[in-house]
Amino acid sequence: MQTDDNARHAEKMAKIKAARDRMMAEKQGEKGLVIVHTGKGKGKSSSGFGMILRCIAHGMPCAVVQFIKGAWDTGERRLLTAHFAGLCQFHAMGEGFTWETQDKARDIAAARAGWEKAKELIRDPQIRMVLLDEINIALRYDYLDLDEVLDFLRSEKPPMTHVVLTGRNAKPELVALADLVTEMEQVKHPFRDGIKAQPGVEF
Amino acid sequence: MQTDDNARHAEKMAKIKAARDRMMAEKQGEKGLVIVHTGKGKGKSSSGFGMILRCIAHGMPCAVVQFIKGAWDTGERRLLTAHFAGLCQFHAMGEGFTWETQDKARDIAAARAGWEKAKELIRDPQIRMVLLDEINIALRYDYLDLDEVLDFLRSEKPPMTHVVLTGRNAKPELVALADLVTEMEQVKHPFRDGIKAQPGVEF
Repeated sequence: MQTDDNARHAEKMAKIKAARDRMMAEKQGEKGLVIVHTGKGKGKSSSGFGMILRCIAHGMPCAVVQFIKGAWDTGERRLLTAHFAGLCQFHAMGEGFTWETQDKARDIAAARAGWEKAKELIRDPQIRMVLLDEINIALRYDYLDLDEVLDFLRSEKPPMTHVVLTGRNAKPELVALADLVTEMEQVKHPFRDGIKAQPGVEF
Repeated sequence: MQTDDNARHAEKMAKIKAARDRMMAEKQGEKGLVIVHTGKGKGKSSSGFGMILRCIAHGMPCAVVQFIKGAWDTGERRLLTAHFAGLCQFHAMGEGFTWETQDKARDIAAARAGWEKAKELIRDPQIRMVLLDEINIALRYDYLDLDEVLDFLRSEKPPMTHVVLTGRNAKPELVALADLVTEMEQVKHPFRDGIKAQPGVEF
């Protein structure tokens, strides 16, 4: 019985492996991707940082521009600047969330400064991945010109550079242009039960 | 005009800020969370690693048990073991994806060894977060007993310890028990266009 079960399992897994090997053999292309993380759930920024840290682990130069959370002393910022400043540039351009500043002109100026820095980093062919953290918020409020951002990604991004754009409410035109899009959907959140943001989890 | 627009903006943002401050003031609780990342999209593991790196940045001892990808030389593993071994333990228990091994008995043994290690780490009150990477796969194939895992999380997890469980097809009973659940939904994936897995992005 045990032997039969094992034999059936091995046969089934061998079939899955063969199908997968065929599928992977067809995938030989490499290109710099436009990657979007959106949705209301957790994990958009932390997964972006996870990719940045993978780049660092592979010795690939990379960069982060924080569009919104810049005023926060986040764990990611501390970690990147303390340990990996040689491989990863970190630029915090935002002034905190917009409902904290209550100054539209200042928010717009911060978003535009962030975008200028982002263009410079993306144009640099040495840099293999640029994370534009929470840029979707700046696009949603029209602090940045969507067409300008799309045109730049289409025409000026070096072919092998990955650009990761995070934040809720990604514009449909950006989703259309992107190669890899994930929607983080909130199924359950402990804020509803009176639990506050905690270190390690939210920041 | 410009002044009016700014005044309207400031008023609107002040209202949002007041509502948000009220909401946050009600959230005073802290507790160790059971966190689940599931769904077919990217970002489940990388966001888990993002949280582990936040813990490291805050000086919080933490640990990772990889249930499935153990045989891969992933960037995360390299980074954690090279830089942060003092704060973060890393245990790779899996033998690679199941369709690679084609040996059910070995897969089950690896999953159980992973779970024994996981229990030991979660019981240690010094450790503030334990990431059980891809454990949902082991649960889905019944390599681990779901009731045993749920009972342990309910009765033996120290109250302030966060446990993060990742992988597609999270069991509904686990979702019911969890405090924070995110479903990573795949909107678009470049594998469909013949692009292979690339360093920094997938591993």
